[in-house]
Amino acid sequence: MDSATLIAIASIVTAGLTIALGSIGPALGEGRAVATALSSLAQQPDASSTITRTLFVGLAMIESVAIYCFVISMILIFANPFWNNVIAQAAGK
Amino acid sequence: MDSATLIAIASIVTAGLTIALGSIGPALGEGRAVATALSSLAQQPDASSTITRTLFVGLAMIESVAIYCFVISMILIFANPFWNNVIAQAAGK
Amino acid sequence: MDSATLIAIASIVTAGLTIALGSIGPALGEGRAVATALSSLAQQPDASSTITRTLFVGLAMIESVAIYCFVISMILIFANPFWNNVIAQAAGK
Amino acid sequence: MDSATLIAIASIVTAGLTIALGSIGPALGEGRAVATALSSLAQQPDASSTITRTLFVGLAMIESVAIYCFVISMILIFANPFWNNVIAQAAGK
Amino acid sequence: MDSATLIAIASIVTAGLTIALGSIGPALGEGRAVATALSSLAQQPDASSTITRTLFVGLAMIESVAIYCFVISMILIFANPFWNNVIAQAAGK
Amino acid sequence: MDSATLIAIASIVTAGLTIALGSIGPALGEGRAVATALSSLAQQPDASSTITRTLFVGLAMIESVAIYCFVISMILIFANPFWNNVIAQAAGK
Amino acid sequence: MDSATLIAIASIVTAGLTIALGSIGPALGEGRAVATALSSLAQQPDASSTITRTLFVGLAMIESVAIYCFVISMILIFANPFWNNVIAQAAGK
Amino acid sequence: MDSATLIAIASIVTAGLTIALGSIGPALGEGRAVATALSSLAQQPDASSTITRTLFVGLAMIESVAIYCFVISMILIFANPFWNNVIAQAAGK
Amino acid sequence: MDSATLIAIASIVTAGLTIALGSIGPALGEGRAVATALSSLAQQPDASSTITRTLFVGLAMIESVAIYCFVISMILIFANPFWNNVIAQAAGK
Amino acid sequence: MDSATLIAIASIVTAGLTIALGSIGPALGEGRAVATALSSLAQQPDASSTITRTLFVGLAMIESVAIYCFVISMILIFANPFWNNVIAQAAGK
Amino acid sequence: MDSATLIAIASIVTAGLTIALGSIGPALGEGRAVATALSSLAQQPDASSTITRTLFVGLAMIESVAIYCFVISMILIFANPFWNNVIAQAAGK
Amino acid sequence: MDSATLIAIASIVTAGLTIALGSIGPALGEGRAVATALSSLAQQPDASSTITRTLFVGLAMIESVAIYCFVISMILIFANPFWNNVIAQAAGK
Amino acid sequence: MDSATLIAIASIVTAGLTIALGSIGPALGEGRAVATALSSLAQQPDASSTITRTLFVGLAMIESVAIYCFVISMILIFANPFWNNVIAQAAGK
Amino acid sequence: MDSATLIAIASIVTAGLTIALGSIGPALGEGRAVATALSSLAQQPDASSTITRTLFVGLAMIESVAIYCFVISMILIFANPFWNNVIAQAAGK
Repeated sequence: MDSATLIAIASIVTAGLTIALGSIGPALGEGRAVATALSSLAQQPDASSTITRTLFVGLAMIESVAIYCFVISMILIFANPFWNNVIAQAAGK
Repeated sequence: MDSATLIAIASIVTAGLTIALGSIGPALGEGRAVATALSSLAQQPDASSTITRTLFVGLAMIESVAIYCFVISMILIFANPFWNNVIAQAAGK
Repeated sequence: MDSATLIAIASIVTAGLTIALGSIGPALGEGRAVATALSSLAQQPDASSTITRTLFVGLAMIESVAIYCFVISMILIFANPFWNNVIAQAAGK
Repeated sequence: MDSATLIAIASIVTAGLTIALGSIGPALGEGRAVATALSSLAQQPDASSTITRTLFVGLAMIESVAIYCFVISMILIFANPFWNNVIAQAAGK
Repeated sequence: MDSATLIAIASIVTAGLTIALGSIGPALGEGRAVATALSSLAQQPDASSTITRTLFVGLAMIESVAIYCFVISMILIFANPFWNNVIAQAAGK
Repeated sequence: MDSATLIAIASIVTAGLTIALGSIGPALGEGRAVATALSSLAQQPDASSTITRTLFVGLAMIESVAIYCFVISMILIFANPFWNNVIAQAAGK
Repeated sequence: MDSATLIAIASIVTAGLTIALGSIGPALGEGRAVATALSSLAQQPDASSTITRTLFVGLAMIESVAIYCFVISMILIFANPFWNNVIAQAAGK
Repeated sequence: MDSATLIAIASIVTAGLTIALGSIGPALGEGRAVATALSSLAQQPDASSTITRTLFVGLAMIESVAIYCFVISMILIFANPFWNNVIAQAAGK
Repeated sequence: MDSATLIAIASIVTAGLTIALGSIGPALGEGRAVATALSSLAQQPDASSTITRTLFVGLAMIESVAIYCFVISMILIFANPFWNNVIAQAAGK
Repeated sequence: MDSATLIAIASIVTAGLTIALGSIGPALGEGRAVATALSSLAQQPDASSTITRTLFVGLAMIESVAIYCFVISMILIFANPFWNNVIAQAAGK
Repeated sequence: MDSATLIAIASIVTAGLTIALGSIGPALGEGRAVATALSSLAQQPDASSTITRTLFVGLAMIESVAIYCFVISMILIFANPFWNNVIAQAAGK
Repeated sequence: MDSATLIAIASIVTAGLTIALGSIGPALGEGRAVATALSSLAQQPDASSTITRTLFVGLAMIESVAIYCFVISMILIFANPFWNNVIAQAAGK
Repeated sequence: MDSATLIAIASIVTAGLTIALGSIGPALGEGRAVATALSSLAQQPDASSTITRTLFVGLAMIESVAIYCFVISMILIFANPFWNNVIAQAAGK
Repeated sequence: MDSATLIAIASIVTAGLTIALGSIGPALGEGRAVATALSSLAQQPDASSTITRTLFVGLAMIESVAIYCFVISMILIFANPFWNNVIAQAAGK
């Protein structure tokens, strides 16, 4: 087991788990926000413009947390500095 | 156990767990959003167009989190850069 | 333990766990959506067409998450690129 | 421990766990749906035909998730491509 | 530890865990359905025929999930194809 | 550690855990059903015959799940086909 | 570590865990049933005979699940067929 | 590590865990029953004789589950048949 | 590592865990009972003698479960028959 | 690693975990009792003497469970019979 | 790894975990007590002196549990009898 | 396995888990805050300016916790002082 | 791996986990207290001085638990007696 | 694996986990506080100045707990005394 293999395995497993675990919180949080938005719309249809605007701002904030996880996951697969270092070393050897 | 085998195993296990764990949050969140939409429709049938439109926007946001997991899972199976690197090395050897 | 055996074991275990874990969220989410649909129907029988239509759209969205897991599970059993690669190598040896 | 034994053990354990874990979600989801159907029937006996029809459609959707698990479990026991491959190899040796 | 012993142990442990874990969901789901049926009966005694009929259909659906687990468990003990294969090999050796 | 010892240990441990884990769900489910039956009786004493009849049918369904576990547990202790096979082999050796 | 010691250890540990884990569900279920009985008695003192009779039937059903665990636990300590087999073998050696 | 030591360790650990885990369910169940009894007494002081009688019967049922655990725990420490067998063997050697 | 050391370690660890785990259930159960007693007293000050008497009987029952754990814990530290046996053997050697 | 070191380590770890785990239940139970006492006082200020007296008796009962853990923890650190035995042996050697 | 190092590591890890785990219960319990005190004050401002006095007594009881953990933690770091024994032995050697 | 590989693996795994685990709390907290904001808007549309301003301040506070995790995660990947030290050593060797 | 390294690793890991785990309880408890304070203020604005004073006393009590953890964590990093002892020994060697 | 590598790995992993675990409690607590603030504002818009002031004080208290974790995490990465000691030793060697 050389260094490149180990780093590749660690990157694969971590990339998957990062987005998998990181999706639980945002999905539940967005579900809750959307659910309350819908019951608020049913309760006060006149305030629909304020409610949907606030909802979209809130969803954007929550989605940003999921996107942090997605970004880290993508960096680990496609722009991993540790992997690049190992590949460069192997090439330069 | 050569490098290719280890990376293949890591990719298989991670791909499966990523979508499996990543489906829990979105499914529960969507279930909650749909449930509230239905009770809101029963409570205020006149606002059905606003409610269903907001519901679909919300479901799209939540579904996107599940799709992040699916994308990572598919990348790990069919476009895995670490696997390609190992296969290329083995071919070029 | 040769490579083919290890990849086969990893594929079997992952395929099973993927659909097993991946069924928990959608089943609970659909149960919740159906339950609310029923109580909404009892509360507002006149809106039954809107409610059932929204319910089926919602169930389709939630079911799609379960189907992602089923697809990954089936790919790991019947169209596993890592297994095909190993079998091809063994045949070409 | 030869390959056939290892694959057999992995298949047995995975088949059992798949249906065991995969039964938790659908059973709870169906329990919830049936429970709400019953309280809806008690609340609005006149809508019983709509309620039971929607209930059966919903139960079919939830049961389908349990059946995915059962199918994977059965495939792993009786139509396992990895096991067939190993048996074929052993026979052809 | 020969192959037969290992497969026997895996079958025993898996058979037990399958029905043990697989009984949690259905038992809780049925408990919930029965409980709601009873409170519905107390609330609307006139609808008792509809309620009990729907209850029995629902219990049958939930029980079917437990029976899937029982079937897999029984197959692993009394009709295990992997065990039969090993016994046949040992007999033919 | 010969085969008989290993199979005996696996059978002992599995038999115990099967009934232990398998008792949690049914006991909680029955507790819930009985509790609702009692509060329903207090709420609608006139429907006591319908309530107790439905309760006993429901308890029988839930108890059946516990009995599946007990049956598997007893089979593993007193009618274990794998143990019988090993004992037969040891006797015939 | 001879066979007898290993089987003895497995029996001791399993007997303890079986009754320990198996007591959680019945105790909670009975607690719930008794609690509801008491609040039902306070709410409808006139139905006390029906309530206490139904309570005792229900407690007997729930207690039976605990007794299954106790029976398995006692069998493992005092009437363990695997232990008897090993002792008989040791005596006959 | 001779057999006697191993069996002694297993007995000590199991005896402790049995009563420790086995105390959680009964204590919570009794707490719930007592709590409901108290609120029922406050709600309907006239039914105090029926309530306390039913409470004591219920507490006895729940306590019996805790006593099963205590009995197994005591048997493992002071009347352990496996330990006696080992001590007898060591004495007779 | 001689036998005495191993048994001493097992006794120390088990004694601590027994009372630690065994304190969770009774403490929560007593907290619940006391809390309900207080709210009952506030709701019905005239029934204070019945309430406090029932509370003390209930607390005694719950405390008895904690005391079972304390007794086992103390026996393991100060009257451990396995330890005595080992010390006696070491002294007689 | 001599016997004294092992027993010292076991005692240190167990003493810490005993009081740490043992503090969770009593703290939560006392928190609940105090909280209910305060809301009862707000609801019925005239019964403050009865409420505070019952509260202090209840807190004493719950605190006693925490003190059992503290006592075992202190015994393991400062009056550990197994440690004394080992030290005495080492001194007498 | 000599004895002193091992005992030092065990003391460090245990001291940290003791206060970390031991802070969960008291913090939650105090949070609950304070929260109820505040809502009681808002509901019955006239009883503020009784409420705050009872609150402080209750907080002191709950805090005492946290302080037990802190004391054990401090003893393990600064007055550890096992460590002192080892240091004394090392010095006297 | 040289030092650089080990530190790279630790950095990769930790970076992923940090943001994955660290996203659960903020996402749920923001979801709750947004949900309450929406229901408050529906309840009191006139206070929408105060509510949205307070919401954005609160979301910023909660988001800051997620950003702490993201910062640590980024530092571990792109500005890791331990990795720089190892690379510098390797270069200077 | 010499003693100093091991003690350093144990101190680092424990210091981090102590404050990480120790922050969960206080943060949740304070969140609950603050939340109730706010709803109490909205319900009874006239009692704001009593409420905020009681809130700050309560927050101080809860914060003190978090500070115990922070203190232990800081002692383990900057004033660790075991580390000082090892460093002193290494210097004096 | 030399000392520096081990301490670096421990520092990396602990720094990440500290802030990841330490963010769960504060984020949930702040979410709860903000949520209650918003519903209080909707309920009593006149008290908005008192409510927002109390909210910010409370958020500061809760945020301080998250900052304790961030500080420990930063110290472990950028001002780690154990790492400095090892680097100094390596430089002075």
